Amino acid sequence: MTNTEQQNQMANAIRFLAIDAIEKAQSGHPGLPMGAADIATVLYTKFLVHDPKNPRWPNRDRFVLSAGHGSMLLYALMYLSGYEDISLDDIRNFRQMGSKIAGHPEYGHGAGVETTTGPLGQGLANAVGMALGERLLNARFGDLINHYTYVLVGDGCLMEGIAQEAISLAGHLKLNKLIVFWDDNDISIDGAISLTDSTDQVARFKACGWNTIKVNGHNQSALARAIETAKTSDKPTLVACKTIIGFGAPRKGGTNKVHGSPLGAEEIAATRKALGWAQEPFVVPSDILDSWRLAGLSAAKKRKKWEAQLSALPVSKRAEFERLMRGDLVSSFESVLDEYKKQLVLDCPHVATRKASEMALEVINGVVVETIGGSADLTGSNCTKTSQMKSVTAEDFSGRYLHYGIREHAMGAVMNGLALYGGFIPYGGTFLCFSDYMRPAMRLSSLMGLRVIYVMTHDSIGLGEDGPTHQPVEHLAALRALPNHFVFRPADAVETVECWQLALRACKTPSTLALSRQNLPLLRRDYKEDNLCMLGAYELLMASDTAQVTLFASGSEVEIIVEAHAILEEKGIPTRVVSVPCFELFFEQSAAYQNALIGDAPLKIAVEAAIRQGWDYFIGSDGVFIGMEGFGASAPMDDLYMHFGITCENVVAVVEERLKQINEGKIK
Amino acid sequence: MTNTEQQNQMANAIRFLAIDAIEKAQSGHPGLPMGAADIATVLYTKFLVHDPKNPRWPNRDRFVLSAGHGSMLLYALMYLSGYEDISLDDIRNFRQMGSKIAGHPEYGHGAGVETTTGPLGQGLANAVGMALGERLLNARFGDLINHYTYVLVGDGCLMEGIAQEAISLAGHLKLNKLIVFWDDNDISIDGAISLTDSTDQVARFKACGWNTIKVNGHNQSALARAIETAKTSDKPTLVACKTIIGFGAPRKGGTNKVHGSPLGAEEIAATRKALGWAQEPFVVPSDILDSWRLAGLSAAKKRKKWEAQLSALPVSKRAEFERLMRGDLVSSFESVLDEYKKQLVLDCPHVATRKASEMALEVINGVVVETIGGSADLTGSNCTKTSQMKSVTAEDFSGRYLHYGIREHAMGAVMNGLALYGGFIPYGGTFLCFSDYMRPAMRLSSLMGLRVIYVMTHDSIGLGEDGPTHQPVEHLAALRALPNHFVFRPADAVETVECWQLALRACKTPSTLALSRQNLPLLRRDYKEDNLCMLGAYELLMASDTAQVTLFASGSEVEIIVEAHAILEEKGIPTRVVSVPCFELFFEQSAAYQNALIGDAPLKIAVEAAIRQGWDYFIGSDGVFIGMEGFGASAPMDDLYMHFGITCENVVAVVEERLKQINEGKIK
Repeated sequence: MTNTEQQNQMANAIRFLAIDAIEKAQSGHPGLPMGAADIATVLYTKFLVHDPKNPRWPNRDRFVLSAGHGSMLLYALMYLSGYEDISLDDIRNFRQMGSKIAGHPEYGHGAGVETTTGPLGQGLANAVGMALGERLLNARFGDLINHYTYVLVGDGCLMEGIAQEAISLAGHLKLNKLIVFWDDNDISIDGAISLTDSTDQVARFKACGWNTIKVNGHNQSALARAIETAKTSDKPTLVACKTIIGFGAPRKGGTNKVHGSPLGAEEIAATRKALGWAQEPFVVPSDILDSWRLAGLSAAKKRKKWEAQLSALPVSKRAEFERLMRGDLVSSFESVLDEYKKQLVLDCPHVATRKASEMALEVINGVVVETIGGSADLTGSNCTKTSQMKSVTAEDFSGRYLHYGIREHAMGAVMNGLALYGGFIPYGGTFLCFSDYMRPAMRLSSLMGLRVIYVMTHDSIGLGEDGPTHQPVEHLAALRALPNHFVFRPADAVETVECWQLALRACKTPSTLALSRQNLPLLRRDYKEDNLCMLGAYELLMASDTAQVTLFASGSEVEIIVEAHAILEEKGIPTRVVSVPCFELFFEQSAAYQNALIGDAPLKIAVEAAIRQGWDYFIGSDGVFIGMEGFGASAPMDDLYMHFGITCENVVAVVEERLKQINEGKIK
Repeated sequence: MTNTEQQNQMANAIRFLAIDAIEKAQSGHPGLPMGAADIATVLYTKFLVHDPKNPRWPNRDRFVLSAGHGSMLLYALMYLSGYEDISLDDIRNFRQMGSKIAGHPEYGHGAGVETTTGPLGQGLANAVGMALGERLLNARFGDLINHYTYVLVGDGCLMEGIAQEAISLAGHLKLNKLIVFWDDNDISIDGAISLTDSTDQVARFKACGWNTIKVNGHNQSALARAIETAKTSDKPTLVACKTIIGFGAPRKGGTNKVHGSPLGAEEIAATRKALGWAQEPFVVPSDILDSWRLAGLSAAKKRKKWEAQLSALPVSKRAEFERLMRGDLVSSFESVLDEYKKQLVLDCPHVATRKASEMALEVINGVVVETIGGSADLTGSNCTKTSQMKSVTAEDFSGRYLHYGIREHAMGAVMNGLALYGGFIPYGGTFLCFSDYMRPAMRLSSLMGLRVIYVMTHDSIGLGEDGPTHQPVEHLAALRALPNHFVFRPADAVETVECWQLALRACKTPSTLALSRQNLPLLRRDYKEDNLCMLGAYELLMASDTAQVTLFASGSEVEIIVEAHAILEEKGIPTRVVSVPCFELFFEQSAAYQNALIGDAPLKIAVEAAIRQGWDYFIGSDGVFIGMEGFGASAPMDDLYMHFGITCENVVAVVEERLKQINEGKIK
């Protein structure tokens, strides 16, 4: 076999593992693995610096399959390269219950999958985050971290809006160690790309500050030269690879028929013939497998050298690096925050929780050096930049603050990339209403279990004049609906620091902090060492006698129920006040705690400047909810609260009316 | 005054109305109206074909202020041009409770606001929908509809991902009557654009198939020439207008300080001096106002001519046009659907609801000629293209089907644009999970009250092997959280056509149809003339005696509770079955109906392959929910339902266990 033949057969090994696994599962996407097998073979056998025996090696090159539906490409690469997490049995078990190799690549299902992909465009933006993480760590630890990030994207990724946000950000930051292969196969699910798009992608990337190279995606030598060239650029590089989808399938290749369905026995037989692959299903000839495994070993020496390099660091620097890689917080974290909380109670600040968040961050960023702050062009409004935080620029990656631009979606996905990369705790701000713009990325934070913190200010009609386009009403409910996601809505400066503390501790769960634009009084006047927000909900004020009413609220509306409490007690109505900073944490508490906290007052009322959905858990379906029923309006804040009846006066009036009805036996 | 001076003062009239209104409100964004006043003056006085006395004239040019924070630009233009909806008093009342002129332009608050803007990038994509609507109507009614669509975008719009989706779609469809002005002022909220972006926007638009022109945005003659040139292109045009944000403000102009805050008395005085504007606040000199009003009258003659043209149409054609403009459905609509429903009961199809949707659409599209179907590259999976629907192409706009490409977000916003434009009922498909990608557009459908129909298939773990990235679990709850949005989840082919019927009737409310990938039996075996889904929830099967259990479900899970009903009744447990195709419509029913339907069976159970949030309304907080608690998994569908316990067997087991506990007095 010539070298070329050998390389072609190595690519065919990928193709047939994909074909056979998809045929066995009777489900999957053969088109991409077949079309991109040559690109992947060149990359994995000639360039990718990784060590399948040490898959989490921090200085490995990253490879992201952004076109996640082509998952069998990645699984085949992992098996062939010698990742121990993926056996041939796993591949036979593709897309079955409990299998490590899921329909789309899932982070955590076996090392070698750098991120969960499938929702298109996300992987590309994650990779931008990883390439950024590399530059940031390089600025902190020098050549200990110095590697490439490779991505494979399809037309679908490039059509998604998030791609543009990610591309333009990468171009702006000159992330020249990012190399993107575009699987340019002219096909999408509906048919030829000409049905939906006429973009000159190469020109588009150039316009965004990228280096570009066009190449035949089935010519492995040309691909190798392209990668060599890409590495010399001072910009990120797009390698536009002209490919044939389902390469090798005589009838279905080059058409949308090969995108997302098994080839079928007949076409598989024809493909075996066309590509000269005489093997039984799932069999890779030993010489081909050996060549793959050899390639998989090629960077082992480099990794060993790197271990030596790490060992040679000064002890404290090495310990710091290892701490960051483990994702542990510094040991002083808890005590510093506790001291700050003590001080807060003394200072008793009357500030918006967005401002309280900034104050907390000022303390946090002083001790938690791994935070990487940022905002989607609302820095001053989100209060996300503290004194320690110099802006990151293309020229200087030693900073800790990212100006993401008006790119919420990429911000979310880049933060995911940073969290996946390791060594960082990213947080990023926008208005709560615009969480909608990055919801797919927030969902992936949750699905992957990443410590990413979303700083969402202007969290209700309390933002006032900007009106209903900017006023969230359904967003709290919509985010609380997301599994594995903490939605914190602190009521004052003390709760704000407690929520930040919880968000930073939660290493497997992303958090949203919903923060007010408007000023709020300090309600937690007594210092408590315990983090009360950890309970999700807790009694802030007791009733003077057997409670007739329990008032529940979150965030800025806790002030309202605290005021109502005073008036109701004055009127002789024993009233409890429960602050609910985090539904999800409350749901994690024991049934005993939950039942005791909810209590059995005859009247339960929840107040939140948002919709009711979700609050029935606290107040029951016969409880009273005071909040929003539809969209907000444009007016000064106080007018809006008055207009929508979210006021202390209204709470008091509703309590009196309802208790009267209850006492008269009109309602139970 | 020379002509130039006159035009400059006309622009200054905009600037000072904006400055004064924002100062009075002590809230708003003066930077854009001041910077873009020259562009707007040229456009409105020399080009825009509109008739302020007949603001809904169908053949008017459209102007969309995509950079909606600059709302005072639009309000000033409306007042100056003579729109009766906007008086000087309204302008004095900017951003106050009940004012027609809200913080951001809101559709429905006065004619002349073509769409609600503020969430960035949306307006541009809406305008693509409008420019598309113009071509579609032109293909149907010839020169009766033949006009331009103009848009003003800022850097924020262009950085948002949705913009790329819209731009590339417009370029692909060669929407050459779309002219976009880019307010290229080098500033965003965080500071200089150089902080966040280095994109060569002109090259980017060119790469997407656009004509481009660069011009000084403060040179009105050059702007006029640019527009003339733009009109000769066979592509959409970007006019890149170099401007100074807050033009005229000596200290704050050209900086981010002028973006989003009132100028302040001192700077206003200095600006008055710098621009030679000696007027008191809110005063426009009568000669300047006269010139504006004259310009506002300039197209009145054209409109009259157009009315004649309309009158000259054959009677039926004219009636059809007027019906479309009113948004009325054809009179045969109800009877045709009813006939179809009758047939369905006879045919008793066992099909996925996505397929049932296609079958219903086959009938609907035959009579409702104004539907414009489409999909974000999932046509075959979403079942959105029926036999009547030829694809729309750049060469032929007579078709009714749009291949939106992998551009969910633009699809939503383009559908909003089509609905705003009038004459069309757009529907578009993707997987329910990817509703996240277009949520900001869906929110605007709801906020504006547009009849846009989202066809969301693969609505649960029932999609199987593609796994958790593609399996919605929180999406039903998240969409039900959205105000003014019908979320339909039909259980079989009969419910599917009923839900389509309701979605089409709902002329002020957008709808989502959540549809199964998997086949489902026909459950509505008895033909009923009434649309039962209109009730939101209804009793599908009665209990044989006083009900001990009521089972609630939606969509594909209704099959499960119907099976459970048979078994439980067999076991002597009287059981009711309630189908819940639409929460929102149920909430609209009388309390009496709601109470009767929910009933007082001691045990209430809801089954939905999604999270619990929202179901407490039906089952109470002590009811039992059988569904999902977290993300799904990749496996064949049946295995997933089994794994997550969403099965008839489990429902029966839970009922027996709970009833035992209740009867033993262990739980109430």
